[in-house]
Amino acid sequence: MGVNSNRVDPFGTIKIQSEIPMFQTPLEIHKVRLPPQTTTFQKLRHRLSEIFFPDDPFHRFKNQTCFMKLILGLQYLFPIFQWGPEYNLRLLRSDIVSGLTIASLAIPQGISYAKLANLPPIIGLYSSFVPALIYSVLGSSRHLGVGPVSIASLVMGSMLSESVSYSQDPILYLKLAFTATFFAGVFQSSLGVLRLGFVIDFLSKATLVGFMAGAAIIVSLQQLKGLLGIVHFTTKMQIVPVLASVFIQRDEWSWQTILLGFSFLFFLLMTRHISLKKPKLFWISAAAPLTSVILSTLLVFSMRNKIHKIAIIGELPKGLNPPSSNMLYFNGPYLALAIKTGLVTGVLSLTEGIAVGRTFASLRNYQVDGNKEMMAIGLMNIAGSCSSCYVTTGSFSRSAVNYNAGAQTTVSNIIMASAVLVTLLFLMPLFYYTPNVVLAAIIITAVIGLIDYQAAYKLWKVDKLDFLACLCSFFGVLFISVPLGLGIAVAISVFKILLHVSRPNTVVLGNIPGTPIFHNLNQYKEALRIPSFIILAVESPIYFANATYLQERILRWVREEEERIIAINGSTLKCIILDMTAVTGIDTSGIDTLCELRRRLEQRSLQLVLANPIGNVMEKLHESNILNSFGMKGVYLSVGEAVADISSSWKPQP
Amino acid sequence: MGVNSNRVDPFGTIKIQSEIPMFQTPLEIHKVRLPPQTTTFQKLRHRLSEIFFPDDPFHRFKNQTCFMKLILGLQYLFPIFQWGPEYNLRLLRSDIVSGLTIASLAIPQGISYAKLANLPPIIGLYSSFVPALIYSVLGSSRHLGVGPVSIASLVMGSMLSESVSYSQDPILYLKLAFTATFFAGVFQSSLGVLRLGFVIDFLSKATLVGFMAGAAIIVSLQQLKGLLGIVHFTTKMQIVPVLASVFIQRDEWSWQTILLGFSFLFFLLMTRHISLKKPKLFWISAAAPLTSVILSTLLVFSMRNKIHKIAIIGELPKGLNPPSSNMLYFNGPYLALAIKTGLVTGVLSLTEGIAVGRTFASLRNYQVDGNKEMMAIGLMNIAGSCSSCYVTTGSFSRSAVNYNAGAQTTVSNIIMASAVLVTLLFLMPLFYYTPNVVLAAIIITAVIGLIDYQAAYKLWKVDKLDFLACLCSFFGVLFISVPLGLGIAVAISVFKILLHVSRPNTVVLGNIPGTPIFHNLNQYKEALRIPSFIILAVESPIYFANATYLQERILRWVREEEERIIAINGSTLKCIILDMTAVTGIDTSGIDTLCELRRRLEQRSLQLVLANPIGNVMEKLHESNILNSFGMKGVYLSVGEAVADISSSWKPQP
Repeated sequence: MGVNSNRVDPFGTIKIQSEIPMFQTPLEIHKVRLPPQTTTFQKLRHRLSEIFFPDDPFHRFKNQTCFMKLILGLQYLFPIFQWGPEYNLRLLRSDIVSGLTIASLAIPQGISYAKLANLPPIIGLYSSFVPALIYSVLGSSRHLGVGPVSIASLVMGSMLSESVSYSQDPILYLKLAFTATFFAGVFQSSLGVLRLGFVIDFLSKATLVGFMAGAAIIVSLQQLKGLLGIVHFTTKMQIVPVLASVFIQRDEWSWQTILLGFSFLFFLLMTRHISLKKPKLFWISAAAPLTSVILSTLLVFSMRNKIHKIAIIGELPKGLNPPSSNMLYFNGPYLALAIKTGLVTGVLSLTEGIAVGRTFASLRNYQVDGNKEMMAIGLMNIAGSCSSCYVTTGSFSRSAVNYNAGAQTTVSNIIMASAVLVTLLFLMPLFYYTPNVVLAAIIITAVIGLIDYQAAYKLWKVDKLDFLACLCSFFGVLFISVPLGLGIAVAISVFKILLHVSRPNTVVLGNIPGTPIFHNLNQYKEALRIPSFIILAVESPIYFANATYLQERILRWVREEEERIIAINGSTLKCIILDMTAVTGIDTSGIDTLCELRRRLEQRSLQLVLANPIGNVMEKLHESNILNSFGMKGVYLSVGEAVADISSSWKPQP
Repeated sequence: MGVNSNRVDPFGTIKIQSEIPMFQTPLEIHKVRLPPQTTTFQKLRHRLSEIFFPDDPFHRFKNQTCFMKLILGLQYLFPIFQWGPEYNLRLLRSDIVSGLTIASLAIPQGISYAKLANLPPIIGLYSSFVPALIYSVLGSSRHLGVGPVSIASLVMGSMLSESVSYSQDPILYLKLAFTATFFAGVFQSSLGVLRLGFVIDFLSKATLVGFMAGAAIIVSLQQLKGLLGIVHFTTKMQIVPVLASVFIQRDEWSWQTILLGFSFLFFLLMTRHISLKKPKLFWISAAAPLTSVILSTLLVFSMRNKIHKIAIIGELPKGLNPPSSNMLYFNGPYLALAIKTGLVTGVLSLTEGIAVGRTFASLRNYQVDGNKEMMAIGLMNIAGSCSSCYVTTGSFSRSAVNYNAGAQTTVSNIIMASAVLVTLLFLMPLFYYTPNVVLAAIIITAVIGLIDYQAAYKLWKVDKLDFLACLCSFFGVLFISVPLGLGIAVAISVFKILLHVSRPNTVVLGNIPGTPIFHNLNQYKEALRIPSFIILAVESPIYFANATYLQERILRWVREEEERIIAINGSTLKCIILDMTAVTGIDTSGIDTLCELRRRLEQRSLQLVLANPIGNVMEKLHESNILNSFGMKGVYLSVGEAVADISSSWKPQP
C-alpha cells in the first residue's frame, strides 16, 4: 500500500488515470448477503415498533417481578411516585422559593395573557391554578412552569375574535374558548396515547423562529390599543388593519396613558436587559411584572379622583375556579371553529411545552418522555376546560424563572398554585385599580423576547431554504393569518423534503490514492478516476418520485463521461458502477428503473453493476427477481471489490 | 490481510471481539475535505439547473455555428425537421398501413369514448382529427397514436355530470367540456414550459395501477346502461348508486339489447384474448371494433322494422370540426368546476401520454423528452378546445396497434387524421343505425385491459405500503370519487416518503474480517463488533422531521450496547462513530441535534466522532461553526480510519 501525495496536479491526474488502478486488489471478493429472512408479520411488527415505540418504553419492565412491574407501571403513569419517596425538606425549601418566585410572575402574566385571548382577566388566574396541580402529578419534567402562554393565547384570541366578539356575546365566546381548550386537550392526549408525537416534529425550528417573530410583532402592535389608550380598536390580527386602526383613532390617544405606559415599558425592558446581561440577576426581571402592577395600581389609586382617562381592570370576582363543564359546546354553527382553534392552539402549545421541557431536562441531564408529556399536557387541558381555564402548557418564561430560582421538582408548581389560590380567595379586590396599560407593557416585554434575529441570521447562513420557510411563516403571520402562515411554512418544509427526494444528488466517485476508499471527485481533488469505469453514487432512496429523473440523469452522466473520454483520448468506457450505499430504500418504480437502465446500457455494450446495496434494498431486489437478471456478478460488496474483480476479468481478453 | 472464514459461530464471534481489530490499520489518516467554495449564487444556479434542466437540453448547441444553432433550434421545437429530410417512400408505405389500421380503431373508439364523457359521439371523431395533425408536427415520439382516451373521458364525464347534466343543458355541458380541455392544455403546456415535469412523477405506478383498475370497474358497470338497454340511469359514478340503478330499473332491461350486446362483447373479448396469446395476430383485435360496428349496424339496419327496443346513435352531422373558441367559458358559476376538471384530466392524460411515449421509445431505443412532450400535448389540447375537440393524449391502445402495425414516424397520425377526415365528410350517415350497445361492448373490452392484477400482486410481494396506496386509490375511486381517490393515493405515497424521512433506519455496523469494510451486523453475520466502539449508520438525511427521533434512537442504541457489554462482561464502551455516508443532507435542526448529542455523550465520558460526511453536509457543518467543537480529530474519512486512529490513541494510556 504505497503512500501517495495527497494533491496531484491536473496533468499528473490524467497520466495516472491511464495506468492500472493504484489501490490494492483484495484477495477475496465477498458475497453481498440478504438480510435474515423474516415474515411479513415480523417486518410489520418491527416497523410499527420503530414508528410508535422508538424509545422502547417497556425496557425497564424486562426481567422484573410482578410487584416491581406494578410499581414501575405506577411510576410510569405518575412520575410523582418516582421522586416522591426521596422527597425531603431541603428539596422542599428550594421548591418553595422557586414556587413563590414564579407565582409573582404568574399573577400579572395570567391577567395579561387572558386579555391577549380577549378573555376576562380572572380566567388567566384560574388557568394558573388547576392545570399546575394536575401537571405536578403527571408531568415528567421537573422544571416546567405551567400556565397560559402568549402564543396560544394570541392564536385563540385571533381565531375566535374573527367570528365572535367577546364584547357582543361574552357567554358564547367563553363557551367557545373552553370548548377549544377541551379539544386541544383531547388532541394532545390522543397524540400521546397513539404515540404520534412525531406530528409536532413537522413544525421545524425555522418555521417556529419566523412564526414567533411574526406573532410577537402582531401582539406588540395590538398592545398599542392599551398603550395609547384607544377605546375603539379593530379585532383583526393582520398588520395592515391594526396599524390603520392605530392612526385612524388618533383622537382617542390619551397622553396620561401613554406616559404611564411607556414609563413602565421602559422599566420592564431595562430589568429584562439587566437579567440578560447578568443571568445571576434573573430575579430582577422575574419580580419586575409584579412590582409594576403594584406600583401602577398604587399610583392610579392615589390619583383616582384626578384622572379618569386611564382604563383599569375593574372588579374581579373572588373565589376559586367555578366548574365549566356545562359550558362545553358540542353542536351548533361554531363547533368547527372551536375544533379548528383547539387543534391549532393544541399543536402550538404542545410544541412550546415539549421544547421547553426538553431544553431544561437536557441542562440537568435527565430525559423527558415526549409521549408522556403530551398525555400530561392534554389531560391538564381537558381538566382545565371543565374548571374555567383556557389553553395552558409549559411556559418558556415561567420555566426559565423556575429553573433559575432553583426548582428541584414539580412541587414548585404546587407552591405556585397555592399562591394563586390565596390570591383568588383574598386578594382579588387589590387589582381593582390596576391600569390596563401596565398589562400591555408586560405583554410587550414578554413577547419581544420571542424575536430571535440571531437564529434567523444563522438560518440564512446555513440553509437558504430553511430561511425561506422562516420568512414565509413570518410574513404569512403578519399579513395573512396565524393558521395560514403556519400552514404555508409547514408546506415549504415538507416541499423541501420532497424536493430533496425528487431531485436527489448524483455524484461521480474517484479512488483516493493509497486506500480502497472511493469519494466524490468534486470534494476530493486528490481522488482519481479509474479508466474504463464511471462510478456514480446516488444520494437518496430510489422512489417513484425520482425514478424517471435518476434514469435520465445517470444516462446523462454516462454521455458526458463518454464525451470527456473522447476529448482527452482516453480508454473507452466499459462499466458503470452504481454505489448504492446511500440508497436507503427502493420501491417498485425504482426497481423498474434499475432494470430499464441496465437494459439500455447493455444495448450500448456497457455493463451496469451495483455496489453495496443495503439490507432492505437487497431484499426488495431479491423479491422482485431482478437479482437473477443482474446475476451475482452484478452486485458487489464495495466499489473497490467491484473495480478489482471487473478489471481483472478484462485482462485476459486484449 | 488474512483470509477469514465467512461465517463465525456465536462463541467465536465473542472471542474475536476481545482481540485487537483484525483489519489492516491504514498508514495514513486522510483529512476530510470541504467541497470547493462556491458563492450562494453559484449554488442556487447549480441547484436550479438540476431541478429544471436535469437533461441539459442545450448540450447539443455547444460549439456550433449560428446557422447550425438555428437549425438545431427549429429541430428542437419541431421534431418533424429532424426526421423530415430523411423521409422516404419505404417509410411512407409503413406509415400508411399503420395509419389506416389505427383509423379503423379510432372511429369506433372516438364515438365510444365521447359517450363515456357524456358528449355527443361526433365530438369523439373531431378529437381524432385536429389533435393528431398538431401532434405530428410537434411530438417527439414516433409511435404515439393520438386521440381521446378512456380514463380522461371517464373523469371528465364524471366530474362534469355531477354538477351539469348533458341532457338538460347540452350547450352549457359542451362549453364546460371545451373549457376544461382548454385549461388542461394550458396546464400541460405550462408544465412543459416551466419544466415542472416532475409534478407528474408524484403519480406513482402503484397509485396508477389501483386507479386504473377502479376506473375500469366503474366504467364497465356504467356500460351496463347500454348493455342492458336501461333508459333511466344514475349520473353518479360510485359503485353503490350505479349497481342500485341497474337493479332498480330491472323493468327497463331489454332482452334484444342484452342478446346483441353480450354476443359482441364475447366476440370482442375473444379477439382480444387471441391477440394477447399471439402478438403477431394483433390486427385481429385491432380490426374487431370496426368489424363489430359494421356487423351490428347492418344487423340493426336489416331488422329496423321489426325491433325498436335497441337504442341507436341516430343522426350525426356531416362536415369538419366547427370552431369552438367562442364556446370557451371564462366567467360564471361553473368556472371553478371547469378548471378543476381541466387540471385532473390534464394530469391524468399527461401521465398516460408520457408513459406510453416512453414505453415505445425505449422499445426502439430513442429518447422522448418529457418537457417537450408536455408542450406538444398541451398545445394539441389548446388547439383542440378551439375546434370542438375534448381532452386527447397519446392513447395506449392506439399506440400499441400503431407500433405493431409497423409505424415509423408521426406521419401515421397524419394518415389516421386523413381517414377520419374522409369519414367526417362522407361516411357519417352510415353510422345512423349503429346500436349503442355495441359501443358499450367496445368500451368494456378496452377498459378491462386496464385491470392489471399481476402488477398488483407484484406490489404486494415487493412493497406493502405501495400495495396499500394501490388499494386506497382502487377503493377510493370505486366508493368515493375519482379526484378524491387519486388524492388519497397521492397523499399515501407522499406520506410514505415522509414516514421514511421521519423514522429513518439506524443500523449497527461491524467489520468484515480481512477488509476495511464496515457493514450492517444484521445483514452480514460474519461482521464483527469492534470492542469499545459502537458504529452506527444513519440511513437518511438529518432533518427537522427526524432530528428528535434520531437523537433519542442513537442514545437508545448506546444504552442497549452498554447493557449488552455488561451482560457479556466486555470492555467498556468508549467511542461512538456515526457513519454519515447515507446522510445526504442536514438542516439547522439536524446540526443542533448533532451538537446536543455530542454534549450529552460527553457528559457520560463517551466520544462521538463522524465518519465520511459528504460534501454538502461537511459544508453546512463548517458554516454553522460546529466543526470547531468537533475538532478535526472528530471527523474522519472512513469508519476504518476512525477506528484505527482512535484505538491507537488509547494504547499508550493503560
